[in-house]
Amino acid sequence: MTETTPGWLSRDELESARARMPILYVEAVPVRVDDNGEVTHVGLLLGIGPDGTVTRSLVSGRVLHHERVRDALLRHLEKDLGPVALPRIPASLQPFTVAEYFPTLGVTPFHDPRQHAVSLAYIVPVTGDCRPRQDALDLVWFSPEEAASPVVTDDMPGGHGVLLRQALAYVGRIA
Amino acid sequence: MTETTPGWLSRDELESARARMPILYVEAVPVRVDDNGEVTHVGLLLGIGPDGTVTRSLVSGRVLHHERVRDALLRHLEKDLGPVALPRIPASLQPFTVAEYFPTLGVTPFHDPRQHAVSLAYIVPVTGDCRPRQDALDLVWFSPEEAASPVVTDDMPGGHGVLLRQALAYVGRIA
Amino acid sequence: MTETTPGWLSRDELESARARMPILYVEAVPVRVDDNGEVTHVGLLLGIGPDGTVTRSLVSGRVLHHERVRDALLRHLEKDLGPVALPRIPASLQPFTVAEYFPTLGVTPFHDPRQHAVSLAYIVPVTGDCRPRQDALDLVWFSPEEAASPVVTDDMPGGHGVLLRQALAYVGRIA
Amino acid sequence: MTETTPGWLSRDELESARARMPILYVEAVPVRVDDNGEVTHVGLLLGIGPDGTVTRSLVSGRVLHHERVRDALLRHLEKDLGPVALPRIPASLQPFTVAEYFPTLGVTPFHDPRQHAVSLAYIVPVTGDCRPRQDALDLVWFSPEEAASPVVTDDMPGGHGVLLRQALAYVGRIA
Repeated sequence: MTETTPGWLSRDELESARARMPILYVEAVPVRVDDNGEVTHVGLLLGIGPDGTVTRSLVSGRVLHHERVRDALLRHLEKDLGPVALPRIPASLQPFTVAEYFPTLGVTPFHDPRQHAVSLAYIVPVTGDCRPRQDALDLVWFSPEEAASPVVTDDMPGGHGVLLRQALAYVGRIA
Repeated sequence: MTETTPGWLSRDELESARARMPILYVEAVPVRVDDNGEVTHVGLLLGIGPDGTVTRSLVSGRVLHHERVRDALLRHLEKDLGPVALPRIPASLQPFTVAEYFPTLGVTPFHDPRQHAVSLAYIVPVTGDCRPRQDALDLVWFSPEEAASPVVTDDMPGGHGVLLRQALAYVGRIA
Repeated sequence: MTETTPGWLSRDELESARARMPILYVEAVPVRVDDNGEVTHVGLLLGIGPDGTVTRSLVSGRVLHHERVRDALLRHLEKDLGPVALPRIPASLQPFTVAEYFPTLGVTPFHDPRQHAVSLAYIVPVTGDCRPRQDALDLVWFSPEEAASPVVTDDMPGGHGVLLRQALAYVGRIA
Repeated sequence: MTETTPGWLSRDELESARARMPILYVEAVPVRVDDNGEVTHVGLLLGIGPDGTVTRSLVSGRVLHHERVRDALLRHLEKDLGPVALPRIPASLQPFTVAEYFPTLGVTPFHDPRQHAVSLAYIVPVTGDCRPRQDALDLVWFSPEEAASPVVTDDMPGGHGVLLRQALAYVGRIA
């Protein structure tokens, strides 16, 4: 219920804003790294989609009014991975990409039927124990090879599979 | 009047949104480059501030609903530099930094009393003739050394001087 | 013959250095962009490989002693694309990735049997007419979709196909 | 003595190579970060310069033949900060900048009388206990404000002060 705190948006206000302006998001690709920093695994959240099928997704959420981007990243990582995931929020705010989700299909590879969202995307190494809460069933770790395969990425909603491949390219783990 | 087109925000709606959520901006640092791509000059917009003094600023503006970041960049560059500036919008959306403007002083180096704005910042080489319109008096080109000097940056409103120094650092032109 | 100028390396010295230390390279992915900066085409050099088959590659070459990275980029682009390609060398030296070519297979996705080369990789929009010289047969423009397809990338020697996919990911043009 | 292992360069060979080609380096700016990833302190190595004065410098060193960039980073960090500094090598090899050191003054802001060196520069959070060995007297932590001040940066040899300011700009900690 964090997102309806007074001073932020009610559900109606959010609906109204969504129809009028781009909504700022952050997205995180949770990874395990070895001592040399190389990515060894990528974490994907499993959930149940509206049609009852299993979905895979990245950590994602809105930036609130008067919230810093790095605080929003930490909040959504804690929400999705639990309180002891120990995420390492990047020292620089330079994202590896900016993903633009449009309510209209085909403007970009990203799509969100609810809104026009613009998302700052970061790689976030996590070192602790991940215990998803909220809507997620589980967090599953994939090798970079598995994560890059169409079997994994093609099912991800809204273009998250494209964002995942961009993340893997950025860390040098696509073949 | 571009920003009050139906489907976008009325002045009242913008005021309301500004009190409730972060507003997405783009900012561009216009530069002249030589044949090797090295920055030789930085362009700053001169204007008249609320108190009648001359102000220097960067190209800056909101991203509208259903507008791509690169289209917003081009629109604001054309608005501020005129139709024949020939800006070279970057091929990648990765910004050199993300600047967070808070209505409260001191949260970040950036400040905007009107709103919480989050700005994607890009270096944009321009090769054509710049003829500022709208509120700007003029566009003035500074050498990187001049642009980095406190005489220039300290007067820039809202932390634009910090953003300018970040831009100069990014292109290797601070000494 | 530029690379045997006195002060630089003779062929024997180059062979000796290649066995002893990493050799610094630059690589450029030539692209066509539209007015909004979006990549519309990617240029690949066609050549004839040692076994007589057609090969596709990116612009690539050594950085010489006392040569700046941006001068090396321009020199290799002019060498491979001709004198009127009008490449736009980036204003910032931050590469989109660093590709490490090892003489041993499997250390990284990149491989060069001659040497350990470390390559700074850049996206370079070109606006002029490209007329390959030297060993290249031709420069061919591919759409991002074609360029990303395994038919194109799988044949590229030394891992250039991986670098090309990283470039496409960086400019938001992989699907 | 790590750098004279058979298969690498003898002192004479290194001298010869330095006169003929650019030498690849890595540089790291050690930082302390808070839970949100924001840089709170920057670590500088204190040493004694050739003229007996105290010098401040960043972690810096060559990449060896057949050594990955991330392995070179870790090796130099362990050499300069000790075995329990627990550096977090970045997941992506994209450096925040590339610093070009020329034996001639004035080509770039960076200068190395011994050689033409090209350095990939990274921000590296360290979480453990730093115990400098080798030639360094000590590692001293500065606040970002102190680290950015001319008193600190102007004395740094070879342009390391410029690189430090670029690093601070990249993590949003210059004012």
